[in-house]
Amino acid sequence: MRMRLKLKTVFVLYFTVSLLGLIYALMQLGQRCDCRGHDMSKDQQISQLRGELQKLQEHIKTSELAKKTDVPRIYVITPTYARLVQKAELTRLSHTFLHVPHLHWIMVEDAPQPTLLVTDFLAASGLTYTHLHQLTPKDRKLQEGDPSWLKPRGAEQRNEGLRWLREMGAAAEGKEAAALEEAVVYFADDDNTYSLQLFEEMRYTYRVSVWPVGLVGGMKFERPVVEDGKVVRFHTGWRPNRPFPMDMAGFAVSLRFILTTPQARFDGDAQMGFLESSFLQHLVTMDDLEPKADLCTKVLVWHTRTEKPKMKREDALQKQGLGSDPDVEV
Amino acid sequence: MRMRLKLKTVFVLYFTVSLLGLIYALMQLGQRCDCRGHDMSKDQQISQLRGELQKLQEHIKTSELAKKTDVPRIYVITPTYARLVQKAELTRLSHTFLHVPHLHWIMVEDAPQPTLLVTDFLAASGLTYTHLHQLTPKDRKLQEGDPSWLKPRGAEQRNEGLRWLREMGAAAEGKEAAALEEAVVYFADDDNTYSLQLFEEMRYTYRVSVWPVGLVGGMKFERPVVEDGKVVRFHTGWRPNRPFPMDMAGFAVSLRFILTTPQARFDGDAQMGFLESSFLQHLVTMDDLEPKADLCTKVLVWHTRTEKPKMKREDALQKQGLGSDPDVEV
Repeated sequence: MRMRLKLKTVFVLYFTVSLLGLIYALMQLGQRCDCRGHDMSKDQQISQLRGELQKLQEHIKTSELAKKTDVPRIYVITPTYARLVQKAELTRLSHTFLHVPHLHWIMVEDAPQPTLLVTDFLAASGLTYTHLHQLTPKDRKLQEGDPSWLKPRGAEQRNEGLRWLREMGAAAEGKEAAALEEAVVYFADDDNTYSLQLFEEMRYTYRVSVWPVGLVGGMKFERPVVEDGKVVRFHTGWRPNRPFPMDMAGFAVSLRFILTTPQARFDGDAQMGFLESSFLQHLVTMDDLEPKADLCTKVLVWHTRTEKPKMKREDALQKQGLGSDPDVEV
Repeated sequence: MRMRLKLKTVFVLYFTVSLLGLIYALMQLGQRCDCRGHDMSKDQQISQLRGELQKLQEHIKTSELAKKTDVPRIYVITPTYARLVQKAELTRLSHTFLHVPHLHWIMVEDAPQPTLLVTDFLAASGLTYTHLHQLTPKDRKLQEGDPSWLKPRGAEQRNEGLRWLREMGAAAEGKEAAALEEAVVYFADDDNTYSLQLFEEMRYTYRVSVWPVGLVGGMKFERPVVEDGKVVRFHTGWRPNRPFPMDMAGFAVSLRFILTTPQARFDGDAQMGFLESSFLQHLVTMDDLEPKADLCTKVLVWHTRTEKPKMKREDALQKQGLGSDPDVEV
């Protein structure tokens, strides 16, 4: 009897404990693991992080400000010379270039040595750059009062940029050499105006790509005329039969092509309007030109010119010893 | 015996089942929930997302391109008018503004209605903007051939910008009203050149902040002259005794101050050189001016002017029916 009682107690106890266990176990069935509370906060975190990521990505995409390096590099050769508006021009040009992914600025001063103004400017610009200088010989230089079309400007500086590219190209190895293979070269004067779209148009250039240029040559725009995807002639207001009646701002050349055509350079003695042709005729025929900017129907670069500021009052005040402080950089 | 056997079988079966339940229940103890496998992948996701976020944030920070909104907002009022170089000017100006955190562009066209060119341009600019228009009455407008100094330009458009600001200010509530309290207003013409530093100088303006302007008024620069941290006179080439002998590009005004001084506006009939004074004299005296740009020793903005392009060849070609395609926007 005592034995049976004990067994009964044990059984009841055991029954109770195991029943609780069973109930608990049954509760677990069908929901492998109750991670819901846990999950909720993590899911919230993930969705919040995803939202933040998306916002940032959109921000970067819309502001087109990514310094992407997985796209062909653009080498921009800019001849520049000391003048009152130089720093202003370089400033706004740099603001444009800062938006262009993978751009390398080759600045070539027309000076016997690098100037402090351009050196300091480039260092503070936030851009990737190479700073060169090449003085134009006196007999090739425009003199005060000469009309701007009398002699081509910037030929020596562009050639110096090309020399640097070829020297660098010859020294490049491995990955860097491969990167140069797909790079493109553009000649961008420091007074023109460039849209950001322009750089994406030129980025993939097989040999020489071309597009319209606004406000050039006494015209609303000049442009290559495209028929069936090919350039067949040029819309220009002057001597359309020049080999390449195009402005410097209207074409880009693949670096590979420049490296394999060492004779291609600008002729500083070229006749007015023939400087571009002197370079391009080493490289291509009209048939080879690659039309960009919606088959040359969009104006994405403008040949703007900045007025030379008048200094009449400055001169008058300087004679009285009251001129602007020469230590202040303008 | 059969009864006992049945009971025993039931007991053994029950014992087995409930033991399994108990074991399962015991396995659950001490680890409230086995979310580890679950957690691992979510934790990985979170840490991966965090990594991506950090990379993007650093990218944005280092490229200085953040549209920070935790700094006072800058409202820039730009009068503009249709001309050949308009799109080019707006293009490079927008490239500068895209680098400036928390900038709101108020574009005011001198036109009877918004033009398609400016509307499309703004929509594609990537900037925060308000597009207004205000036609200058004919008798106040410069006529073809008039010298640019004959009549002040842009007075009506700047006043329209001020009107919009005051209307918005009156309607603002809560957080937005608080944000407006610390905002600043700048009048930026579309042909000038602005450094990025300029905007950080003006961002914290209590009433009216001032700085030098390069290449203006026939001078290398004009500037307020500062002694003991106060503006005491102006370096200018012409009528230094005007109330405020400063260019439009040389000052910014706190929005709070503009909202509380509704009488401050530009006088379109002001004498040449007195347009800035006509506005500022409602707001401050020379003593109140806040000198910026290292006590007005740095030139951070340039009064550049763009040449009007000659259209001689275009005109000649148009007479022959060979002009540039009018459907191409320049």
